[in-house]
Amino acid sequence: MHPLDPIFKPKSIAIVGASRDPKAIGHQCVKNLIESKYEGKIYPINPKADEVAGLKCYHSILEVPDEVDIALIVVPAKYVPAVAEDCGKKGVKGLVIIASGFSEVGRKDLEDQVLEIARKYGMRILGPNVVGIMNNPLKANASFGPYLPYPGKAALISQSGALLIAMDARTWSDKVGISHMISIGNMADLNFGDLIEYFNEDEDTNVISLYMEGVKDGRKFLNNARKSRKPIVALKAGVSQRGAAAAASHTGSLAGSTKIYDAAFKQGHVIRAENLDALFDETMALALQPPMRGDNLLIITNGGGVGVLATDAAEKYGIPIKDAPDDLKLLMMKHMPEFGSPKNPVDLTGMADDGQYYGSIKDGIKHDWVDGVVVLYCETSFTDPQKIAESIYNAYKESGVNKPIVVNFTGGERSVKAGEWLIQNGIPYYKSPDAAVRAISSLRTYGRYREKEHTEFKPYEVNYERAKAIINRTLGCGRKILTEPEAKEVFAAYGLPVPKGKMAKNEEEAVKIARAVEYPVVMKIVSPQIIHKSDAGGVKVNLKSDDEVREAFKDIVENAKHYDPHAEIFGVYVQHMEPWGTETIIGSTYDKQFGPTVMFGLGGIFVEILKDVTFRIAPFSEDEAMDMIKEIRGYKILKGARGEKPRDIKAIAEAISRLSQLVWDFRDQIKEVDANPVMAYEHGLKIVDARIILK
Amino acid sequence: MHPLDPIFKPKSIAIVGASRDPKAIGHQCVKNLIESKYEGKIYPINPKADEVAGLKCYHSILEVPDEVDIALIVVPAKYVPAVAEDCGKKGVKGLVIIASGFSEVGRKDLEDQVLEIARKYGMRILGPNVVGIMNNPLKANASFGPYLPYPGKAALISQSGALLIAMDARTWSDKVGISHMISIGNMADLNFGDLIEYFNEDEDTNVISLYMEGVKDGRKFLNNARKSRKPIVALKAGVSQRGAAAAASHTGSLAGSTKIYDAAFKQGHVIRAENLDALFDETMALALQPPMRGDNLLIITNGGGVGVLATDAAEKYGIPIKDAPDDLKLLMMKHMPEFGSPKNPVDLTGMADDGQYYGSIKDGIKHDWVDGVVVLYCETSFTDPQKIAESIYNAYKESGVNKPIVVNFTGGERSVKAGEWLIQNGIPYYKSPDAAVRAISSLRTYGRYREKEHTEFKPYEVNYERAKAIINRTLGCGRKILTEPEAKEVFAAYGLPVPKGKMAKNEEEAVKIARAVEYPVVMKIVSPQIIHKSDAGGVKVNLKSDDEVREAFKDIVENAKHYDPHAEIFGVYVQHMEPWGTETIIGSTYDKQFGPTVMFGLGGIFVEILKDVTFRIAPFSEDEAMDMIKEIRGYKILKGARGEKPRDIKAIAEAISRLSQLVWDFRDQIKEVDANPVMAYEHGLKIVDARIILK
Repeated sequence: MHPLDPIFKPKSIAIVGASRDPKAIGHQCVKNLIESKYEGKIYPINPKADEVAGLKCYHSILEVPDEVDIALIVVPAKYVPAVAEDCGKKGVKGLVIIASGFSEVGRKDLEDQVLEIARKYGMRILGPNVVGIMNNPLKANASFGPYLPYPGKAALISQSGALLIAMDARTWSDKVGISHMISIGNMADLNFGDLIEYFNEDEDTNVISLYMEGVKDGRKFLNNARKSRKPIVALKAGVSQRGAAAAASHTGSLAGSTKIYDAAFKQGHVIRAENLDALFDETMALALQPPMRGDNLLIITNGGGVGVLATDAAEKYGIPIKDAPDDLKLLMMKHMPEFGSPKNPVDLTGMADDGQYYGSIKDGIKHDWVDGVVVLYCETSFTDPQKIAESIYNAYKESGVNKPIVVNFTGGERSVKAGEWLIQNGIPYYKSPDAAVRAISSLRTYGRYREKEHTEFKPYEVNYERAKAIINRTLGCGRKILTEPEAKEVFAAYGLPVPKGKMAKNEEEAVKIARAVEYPVVMKIVSPQIIHKSDAGGVKVNLKSDDEVREAFKDIVENAKHYDPHAEIFGVYVQHMEPWGTETIIGSTYDKQFGPTVMFGLGGIFVEILKDVTFRIAPFSEDEAMDMIKEIRGYKILKGARGEKPRDIKAIAEAISRLSQLVWDFRDQIKEVDANPVMAYEHGLKIVDARIILK
Repeated sequence: MHPLDPIFKPKSIAIVGASRDPKAIGHQCVKNLIESKYEGKIYPINPKADEVAGLKCYHSILEVPDEVDIALIVVPAKYVPAVAEDCGKKGVKGLVIIASGFSEVGRKDLEDQVLEIARKYGMRILGPNVVGIMNNPLKANASFGPYLPYPGKAALISQSGALLIAMDARTWSDKVGISHMISIGNMADLNFGDLIEYFNEDEDTNVISLYMEGVKDGRKFLNNARKSRKPIVALKAGVSQRGAAAAASHTGSLAGSTKIYDAAFKQGHVIRAENLDALFDETMALALQPPMRGDNLLIITNGGGVGVLATDAAEKYGIPIKDAPDDLKLLMMKHMPEFGSPKNPVDLTGMADDGQYYGSIKDGIKHDWVDGVVVLYCETSFTDPQKIAESIYNAYKESGVNKPIVVNFTGGERSVKAGEWLIQNGIPYYKSPDAAVRAISSLRTYGRYREKEHTEFKPYEVNYERAKAIINRTLGCGRKILTEPEAKEVFAAYGLPVPKGKMAKNEEEAVKIARAVEYPVVMKIVSPQIIHKSDAGGVKVNLKSDDEVREAFKDIVENAKHYDPHAEIFGVYVQHMEPWGTETIIGSTYDKQFGPTVMFGLGGIFVEILKDVTFRIAPFSEDEAMDMIKEIRGYKILKGARGEKPRDIKAIAEAISRLSQLVWDFRDQIKEVDANPVMAYEHGLKIVDARIILK
């Protein structure tokens, strides 16, 4: 038994704040449980009523004779702590706090107070500020939403209450089947990560669908999502700059950076829905169909036009259409007139009847080459959409394959009716070719996630103690920024390739180091106060002789003193000057929701003009780092564009992954890291400049 | 009277190939005209029948006693020429050739034959290979599609017949109102440009909607679209690489390059629909609502979640949401509880009733700052969607403004019903916030097109005769490629800035030229056979003295002879070496459908790695060229990124526009132009290398 079972499979539900006024939420919750035909026990609680909606009403939860699994709390916010105390004493397992007036209006204190009470008694909280739970398997509408959603296998979790109620109605018109619809509210206790973990185990659910404005405990979300054996699809609201601000004000949760969510979704194997229509469409596909386990999509159509539109959409959604192999073409030709086209899209022509649909689908989906099928049908006057639908269903069923199929009927009411019949028989139907292809592309995304046998992150052998010593020493001196030599030493301790170099205290030391690291050298001022070393005249490059080094030492120190007379000068860093390579950047910032993250990109205009960078949540494996490298636009450069040799991509991936380990190990100390530029060569790389900023 | 009126406002229609077999298309066409209640005259023609579908049938069109405006031709392709002859003799005005079996199956000869007959008699042709014409104002279903579309004000023209029939059905379920639905087929005669010109004049139509695979006569399309006073929205199929190939095979028309269509749509002020759903959604908005004449979009909602989604969508579709001014916020506060938000989106909260919708919409849309309104409503249990719909309608109607409004109700059947009521009352309704925002963004795009007082192209004063002489001389010599000095002279004749330079025949001439153009100089081999001058060792740069010039002359000529012993060597081009600037590229290619086009982009990785280039159809004004410059990603560089001074954008725009004149003037001679690199400076620019290839 799962610890959250009492909440999502309750045997008894109390409504604290039950009301005799039919317009009150406290009344609706009672009525909804009755009307949805909940078979567990319902206990209305109201100190001033003896009966609500025909049920006996108790004056206090403590009077209830039996056990109570969950309590829906619909009293005003200020009374919630007292109610929570009573619930705790009664041994209630979960509080579903419908009441609003907590952190969403600045009363985090009240929320914390309730949470503390819940913890004391071992109760879990859903909310506050929720609509409730709509539970189709139990027929329990434990909410103030009007009715249970269209029944099915998707757990739909929404951070917006109003949207949840509206989606509830839409599930019926779209025929998207739902097991549980859950309003997650302020997430004082239970958050997305908890619910993902729960519904991953729930036998009534086979897809987890999220409307999300922001997470709490991003780590738990990421880890539980990644562990989930069921597909997760999420609509992240607040992806625009202003939308993010609006989302933050709307639920009081931090919307966070879009790029960081992108990273978390990729690493958590969460399928991202681009809008509300996509969330519904993809939820249906993921609930009804298996993942698509390859890139070979076959399109079967009776109209060339929709075939072209589907082909365009396939490229847009990342599964470009390929030529079918010859034997498949021969098979397809059996099911079309002479002027049909057996290529992909397979054009059965406008004359196609249900028999030809049946034959081509059955032969097509059974063919080894085919990984998934999109069936398109343009309504005609001489075919019956329902017959076409039945032929599709029969062909798919009789093929016995475990490959996905989705359908688009373009037409009017007859097509819609036939489409709904298909949905009821397990085959996703969509109104437009674009939507159908988008839906199967979500099955492909899910398939790709499952194929990805990403080695989970395994720590490298590093000199943790050395890095720790340097960081602690810096903090001990009251400094927040490591000097460049310190930062490079930390890097070196984590196996990150830095040029040979050392700090010199005087000219002669500088010469000695220069000879040791080999000419040519670069020299840079080392001072905690001087961040912008070049601006201070604190950098000299391409020094080739002892004399030049002596001269440079003098100049640098003088310039630094002139630049900032109060700057504390530790010395001058003398470093072997590395040859020019392709400039890349590896960095790290600390995200409030997800903790340490790592960024990668190319230098120059790629980062400055194009913002062509990508993120991941640390730590992560080299494989994941390889994905990062491949997804930037500048990847072509690293692969060796314009006649140049390819760069050592494996070495870059290793460096990214090692840096992810560093920022994870020191997540409590490190705020930001910048390795910029990182020179990438045909063989290996060198981190030419480095910065580490502590919290 | 418009010359095409007999075709689109026919008083009499003959059906040549009328059949007694109810399953035959020749029967359906007759029946459809009767059933749609066409009030003109219907003449079935069949040599072997005396009656079809209850109407007298004539054995030949020549037997028809009255005038015949159009003839639907449903006989097999091989009989069409004979039928066309008869029609011509009869004085028929237009042939709607439903028959297929022409250019779409490789029988362009047959198509040409019919076209010739039509021309002889002054008849126009729609088709061949069409479904027909569905004409709502006349109640004439002159097609084999089953019924007339949902009535309204959009002329919908489709290049796919099957899709047309399917869309016909969908107009009824989506409630998208149509005046004419026209299957355009192979476009042997009437093409998109002709129909745009016609429906721009048609009083029953206020938006022209296209499903397009490829154009014929791209110029006419572009010019007539640009002249149209009605909005045009187009779904271009075949935008992916494979989709383009599929579209080409599907209708036998050249699908053309996506970038060229992009250009033509921008210049023709055509709104581009991203998919079939968008085509329907935007057609409805453009038919029912005025253009949006500014960027200030106000969102009014009862749900924060959908508000955030709409905000995200607004940024995605190019009308980012802004803060409302304070006085507007104060007005909005009157219509919401204390915990509502008067910011933009205006959140009336989940408690909002019809009165609050009414008040906020009326006050909002009347406010001077507001250019358009999106109303969002999440279905709740205590509000009646129909009442909300009526309050929206009343508020909008009573406001009396000429600003657009669109609506999204998220919910179930009740919301859909209320939404349909809104549509019937002139207010576009959509099922999702994203779709609603996308629809109003098409009204904004249309508004922007109307605001654009782009000076039409006015030719510059150029030395046309000089350019012509050089080009003719080149052709006269049997050459297809101008030498660099020739190309630069042509450029100079069109006022395009080229470096000072001249071709030298010997060392001493080279020195003389070098002194005249001023050191430093660049020297390049001039030979019609040597295209890749650098590969041939035919380029020397940064020459600073007479001696270096002499040396270089010798080397270049020797290298060239070695590289290609058969190369004809005209001499060595000596040119002043221009300082380094921001590298840009201006080029031109000749498009089969649209004629000469001009391309612009930044050099280096922008063109090589990022393909960051943009096109226009020549000729065009400096303003249009300015739009090109602003729409490339590298525009930031030209504006002066990374601490550099901004480049002379006006000079670049002028150069682009002048080049567009050049390639237009010599559209019959020039195939390709390359000005690469074009060095852009703080003041002015220089075309450092130039190539012109003739047809």
